[in-house]
Amino acid sequence: MTNPADLPAAEAARRIAAGRLAPAELVEACLDRIATREPVVRAFSSLDPALPRRAAARPPGGPLGGPPGGPLGGLPIGVKDVLDTADLPSEYGSPIWAGHRPRADASAVALTRAAGGIVMGKTVTTEFATRHPGPTSNPHDPARTPGGSSQGSAAGVAAGFFPLAFGTQTAGSVLRPAAYCGVTGFKPSFGLIHRAGMKVMSESLDTIGMFGRTVEDCALFAGALTRLDLGARAGSAPRVALCFGPGEAELSPDSLARIEAVAERCARAGAQVTRIPLPPALQAVAQAHPVVMNGETVHALAWERATARALISPVLNERLDEAAARPASALIAARAAFAEGRKAFRALMDSFDVLLTAAAPSEAPIGLDATGDPACNALWTALHGPCISLPAGTGAAGMPLGVQLVAPFGEDAALLGWARWVEDVIAG
Amino acid sequence: MTNPADLPAAEAARRIAAGRLAPAELVEACLDRIATREPVVRAFSSLDPALPRRAAARPPGGPLGGPPGGPLGGLPIGVKDVLDTADLPSEYGSPIWAGHRPRADASAVALTRAAGGIVMGKTVTTEFATRHPGPTSNPHDPARTPGGSSQGSAAGVAAGFFPLAFGTQTAGSVLRPAAYCGVTGFKPSFGLIHRAGMKVMSESLDTIGMFGRTVEDCALFAGALTRLDLGARAGSAPRVALCFGPGEAELSPDSLARIEAVAERCARAGAQVTRIPLPPALQAVAQAHPVVMNGETVHALAWERATARALISPVLNERLDEAAARPASALIAARAAFAEGRKAFRALMDSFDVLLTAAAPSEAPIGLDATGDPACNALWTALHGPCISLPAGTGAAGMPLGVQLVAPFGEDAALLGWARWVEDVIAG
Repeated sequence: MTNPADLPAAEAARRIAAGRLAPAELVEACLDRIATREPVVRAFSSLDPALPRRAAARPPGGPLGGPPGGPLGGLPIGVKDVLDTADLPSEYGSPIWAGHRPRADASAVALTRAAGGIVMGKTVTTEFATRHPGPTSNPHDPARTPGGSSQGSAAGVAAGFFPLAFGTQTAGSVLRPAAYCGVTGFKPSFGLIHRAGMKVMSESLDTIGMFGRTVEDCALFAGALTRLDLGARAGSAPRVALCFGPGEAELSPDSLARIEAVAERCARAGAQVTRIPLPPALQAVAQAHPVVMNGETVHALAWERATARALISPVLNERLDEAAARPASALIAARAAFAEGRKAFRALMDSFDVLLTAAAPSEAPIGLDATGDPACNALWTALHGPCISLPAGTGAAGMPLGVQLVAPFGEDAALLGWARWVEDVIAG
Repeated sequence: MTNPADLPAAEAARRIAAGRLAPAELVEACLDRIATREPVVRAFSSLDPALPRRAAARPPGGPLGGPPGGPLGGLPIGVKDVLDTADLPSEYGSPIWAGHRPRADASAVALTRAAGGIVMGKTVTTEFATRHPGPTSNPHDPARTPGGSSQGSAAGVAAGFFPLAFGTQTAGSVLRPAAYCGVTGFKPSFGLIHRAGMKVMSESLDTIGMFGRTVEDCALFAGALTRLDLGARAGSAPRVALCFGPGEAELSPDSLARIEAVAERCARAGAQVTRIPLPPALQAVAQAHPVVMNGETVHALAWERATARALISPVLNERLDEAAARPASALIAARAAFAEGRKAFRALMDSFDVLLTAAAPSEAPIGLDATGDPACNALWTALHGPCISLPAGTGAAGMPLGVQLVAPFGEDAALLGWARWVEDVIAG
């Protein structure tokens, strides 16, 4: 029998609803797993087992969460530490915010509790969800990074600490760690999940997303937060645009081969697969991405830069100093390139249902001092459409590989439907 | 000689830069005015005179602000209490947040201090910048509302408490109080000023804006925050679209007559003025506005609604309950109407430089229990372009009237340039 800590969220929810699994039992299974593996994985920035235990024992429907009471009833959920929580510290991966206790939950956290979800703890983020890593290791190999910035959330789902977790993505902070850790990572359309109570860096890019074990898990979680029906299966077979994107030169041979193999399986299952080059308007978006990301982060961290510069990592100070030295018109021009690229992508996708590309350039790199390269993700984040990373076997070193599916803005339900189709094909 | 408390910000900045006005002298003049008039105007939610006095005495260039040191060097600035400040309470106009002391300044506040601006105090906002009013009265008549939601900021500029102030706008929260109080109110393009550290309600609509005494004041303030050159005068005469918009049926006779008189003066000064009806795509935006505003506010206040419902005003609870009962697809459809409207407005404005419309339906209404009608503003906010309200004399009751100029997204510098042209024409 499967350990409850390893169940997909949707399956756990079905067992809870049917009375075959008690929320307290699921919480204890996760806490047991945490007791065993957290010393090496280091997924949590703060954890108080009394809190999920109390939530699991609470009667349904209350404002502080509790089983079953809602679509997430009784499910343990990891919360990336860029989202505020009223009952646990919120430190944003920075010593500047050490010990910070917000008065309120972030919107996404409050909605999670209202839907019956149980906050398991806060998960490690890189510094302000940028590059400087936290201590988390990859559950498949402690010598390797779990990716970033949502490192604790991705690693925690992979390790069985919780079946669902929040991530956020500015470049590749959900999709890449999902691929490295062998879980499913979903970044919805920009703006689908409200960012109130999130430590936002790039207003034009930052998107709240999630990790689960399956596409259905992510659809369950996003659907609970938005009240949208995101759980439907798609039709018979999609029209797939195969595009290696701006990260193509970075792709490892096994990663490249895996995407081609997935594309071939899709074609054999009836999909119409067309390999396309990256259109120039989308190349321009990829180039504009760091200008917007860093230019807006300079503003987001204006207080930290003015009052606590010595507590910002050298790598982030350097990157932001460089961005702050650019003329302000560069930021405006880069945002305009985004707008043009979105139009071009929408037009391109008139002929396709989903775009298939890499979720990360390779297996998770060795070392915890860097979180890998978001080259396969930044462009698609800037296009504002939904993206999902699906586990797709292992690579040369035996570590997980992932593939990414992308759709235009607003096509969240359709993307998730086709992702279930591709997931089945991969499992095939 | 003009009391320094009544100087436009740009003129005060010139005198400070030339050594003809000491920042401390300006701060004291404002504090004197506050001592005299604040008991009736009630513009501040929190004020500690020691703080601006200390900032005015500080050597230039430090991270906590101080004169002259930057483009805002030595200028007292009012900060709407939806923007966090590390040195003063930030209560968002709600008893739920009574006594809240954030660790950090909001981005816009930190940038203001870095540019030499002196935070004078926090100004009254309606409850979460929605409708339920605070205690502020109109400086021109204490029986009348100053408008909302940025009520303390608009009233404070009008009363001489500070020459510049921050507002925020979701429907008409900068433009309408500017008109009611006889000051200049500028809402830049959506996203121009970063919202980190703001209590955001509608992610799709909320925009940080400002109040000054002149267009030049607003350009100085917005330029200092963004490092964009927004201060240039425009060319010889604009192509003006005269459009009464969705608020037309609400316009008082004196307000209607004033807009027509301003249009006529513009035409006499060489502008090409064309009266246009409201295109259907823009009517659809006006109808979609409350769906987006309230639908997103439901999410923004998820924690407050779950844990402190009894401390939310009945009017806001009712509005949000209604929004929460709508199908989630209505919010998605309303945002899509915004996107269509923006395209239509951009196309329409190929033939015009600015659109001229009302800034508010009438003079400030009698009573402090409501803040007036945003019918003249909500549509233009949703279109994401810059909007400015210019004082345009007084109406039937002797209270200020305003006119509004609007341009498409990104045309901030051009709009401000033409606004200076129209300002001169009005002063004529």
